Amino acid sequence: MTELLPLPAGFTTAGIRCGIKSDPQKLDLALFVSDRPCAAAGVFTTNLVCGAPVKVSRDRLPRSTARAVVINSGNSNAATGDHGISDAKRMTTLVAEQIGASSDDVLVASTGVIGRFLPMDVLEAGIPVAAKQLSETSESFLLAAQAMMTTDTFPKQATQSLRIGDKTIRISGACKGAAMIAPNMATMLCVIMTDAGLDQDQAGTMLRQSVRDSFNCISVDGHESTSDTVILLANSASGTVVNTPDECQMFQHALDEVAMKLATDIIRDAEGAHHFVELNVTGCRTREEAFRIAKAVADSPLVKTAICGADPNWGRIVSAAGYAGVPLLESDMTLAVNGFLLYQSGAPVEFDAKQVSTSLRDNRNVTIDLTLTHGLEMVRFWTCDLTKEYVELNADYTT
Amino acid sequence: MTELLPLPAGFTTAGIRCGIKSDPQKLDLALFVSDRPCAAAGVFTTNLVCGAPVKVSRDRLPRSTARAVVINSGNSNAATGDHGISDAKRMTTLVAEQIGASSDDVLVASTGVIGRFLPMDVLEAGIPVAAKQLSETSESFLLAAQAMMTTDTFPKQATQSLRIGDKTIRISGACKGAAMIAPNMATMLCVIMTDAGLDQDQAGTMLRQSVRDSFNCISVDGHESTSDTVILLANSASGTVVNTPDECQMFQHALDEVAMKLATDIIRDAEGAHHFVELNVTGCRTREEAFRIAKAVADSPLVKTAICGADPNWGRIVSAAGYAGVPLLESDMTLAVNGFLLYQSGAPVEFDAKQVSTSLRDNRNVTIDLTLTHGLEMVRFWTCDLTKEYVELNADYTT
Repeated sequence: MTELLPLPAGFTTAGIRCGIKSDPQKLDLALFVSDRPCAAAGVFTTNLVCGAPVKVSRDRLPRSTARAVVINSGNSNAATGDHGISDAKRMTTLVAEQIGASSDDVLVASTGVIGRFLPMDVLEAGIPVAAKQLSETSESFLLAAQAMMTTDTFPKQATQSLRIGDKTIRISGACKGAAMIAPNMATMLCVIMTDAGLDQDQAGTMLRQSVRDSFNCISVDGHESTSDTVILLANSASGTVVNTPDECQMFQHALDEVAMKLATDIIRDAEGAHHFVELNVTGCRTREEAFRIAKAVADSPLVKTAICGADPNWGRIVSAAGYAGVPLLESDMTLAVNGFLLYQSGAPVEFDAKQVSTSLRDNRNVTIDLTLTHGLEMVRFWTCDLTKEYVELNADYTT
Repeated sequence: MTELLPLPAGFTTAGIRCGIKSDPQKLDLALFVSDRPCAAAGVFTTNLVCGAPVKVSRDRLPRSTARAVVINSGNSNAATGDHGISDAKRMTTLVAEQIGASSDDVLVASTGVIGRFLPMDVLEAGIPVAAKQLSETSESFLLAAQAMMTTDTFPKQATQSLRIGDKTIRISGACKGAAMIAPNMATMLCVIMTDAGLDQDQAGTMLRQSVRDSFNCISVDGHESTSDTVILLANSASGTVVNTPDECQMFQHALDEVAMKLATDIIRDAEGAHHFVELNVTGCRTREEAFRIAKAVADSPLVKTAICGADPNWGRIVSAAGYAGVPLLESDMTLAVNGFLLYQSGAPVEFDAKQVSTSLRDNRNVTIDLTLTHGLEMVRFWTCDLTKEYVELNADYTT
């Protein structure tokens, strides 16, 4: 059962099948629309090879008059040159015509195969159909989340509400993930809507902060996507403006919670994964050093296959830390997996390999704690194991 | 059938089973000995978590009086602290006693599981046995190559001879690889012997040059090992000193050939690999930029699974180039796979997907040519695909 989550005030959504994907059962077009102008901000892939929709939406953000996001799945409109840019812009114009907005106030994102032109005929026909189905219901929000999915096995949504003064503010978001997931960011698309009042600078600052500790701390396979997009829309429909430092902190916290839930759902649904791995790298001089170590460990196929095989091969973890580009000595490191101490201050610890292996086998959730002696900075990072199913899923994606 | 290759003059080798590995069929101790002092140089892993043998051998190199290299497989003596250092030194002392040398003139390398102490009793007993079997025959060279193997499926050897003046110089080497292979370098151990006369500075310069274009240009899984070691021993037994620029160039070329053959054999025997991939990144501003792009492409699990599945998913290749940290535009890139043009100056090219897929399926050797418009520098890099067998082999290595 998928839980039904509410939309913030003033937002409507839709998810339909327009015919981009070959499977006739699958939805492939989502709309997120606000009934009034939104402060909007975005965070995008840093890959220099990026999709046309990334270029179009990045150019339009931040802004204070955004009205909608249109997303298609099944085709990423990436590596498609000027033709692709023109197709992405056309998608926003089609939406703008339906909702009575300027094209520039519509943002766009696409996910799917790289390097193929969008089938514009099905989008020309589909966008008006989707616009007619726009609704404020939880069911429509779920359909929109489903229409973003590629190899995801479940839709990913999150919501939080908070009280500021006598008003309730809501933040709701949807995302898709599955693979090509690496920091900055993932083939992940995410739309977060709130009925709070923010200005566009606030929206940008708060979104970057949330993304830093959520979507930028997940890795499935280390391959940085061409299409990663996170968009925040704030439409003020709650009648409450987030203003004082306290209110900002409360709002930031709620936004963090939404982003974290969505990001970890991506790892829970990572392609072919059997294990959900939380990696805590603590005791570092800087967050950046903690992050580098976490990313080196999380991206190592040898670490990921060991977890798949429930093999407490801790040498692979500490040796990945050794090539992270962070100055360190072996004796600076202590490692525990699922609470079992395996390596302390640079020396192996006697442990019951069978017991640790059983713990890895019986728990879908794995915790790796790598503690250094350098300082007080830390990072929490999420990844998954590397399985035969991952290879199967990715060995013939386009053919 | 394994070809039998000759040793250079003045060298003897041995390979025996002393009992480190659990499988009673497998050799696990190799000796490489010169009958006179050698100019010797080494190149080692840059991982800050490195094996005790790396620390011991690195401290002793370069030198002009080296006599031998001792290698065990089945246990890498890495992450073993001071205890491990003392065991590694003890191995060299045991060899030194047998051949009448100083311990400092013996080098050591180990490969296998990380984080376990060496079983010193079997090495105390085994090293004298191995020393008694030292021989100048091709058979003994093959046994030594076999005794270095871990998950390798075939021994890796190479030889070259060249004439300088009226004398013949020989260069022969052996290595092991299989997985945890990434630039700087691989869990790969390599010993290259020559009867040419070099001084220790020459040996170092020439070895680094050869390693740069061979062992540092291969990647199986991007996990940089704790134990990578390449050692060059030059004992002058041919009576010929490499001196003039012409002689140096000839020798360098022959050394490059030996290193290249050994490095590509590692990729041919990569764990679970179905495809041998040669990646040519050309048209770059600097070799370093070409190298970064090649490594990003070679390390991407999405590129590697696509090759496994014979899927001409070229978007994964150009998008990996996009996050290599090299400034570039999509329109700077042109891509061909197995000679089929797939992407030209930033735009997809019409191609027969079935034909390219068949070519990938029917050829074990895959060539990827990624051409940029930035300059004249290039790199050749070798990698393999990522298969279900790789996951299987690495999912339960220690348990």
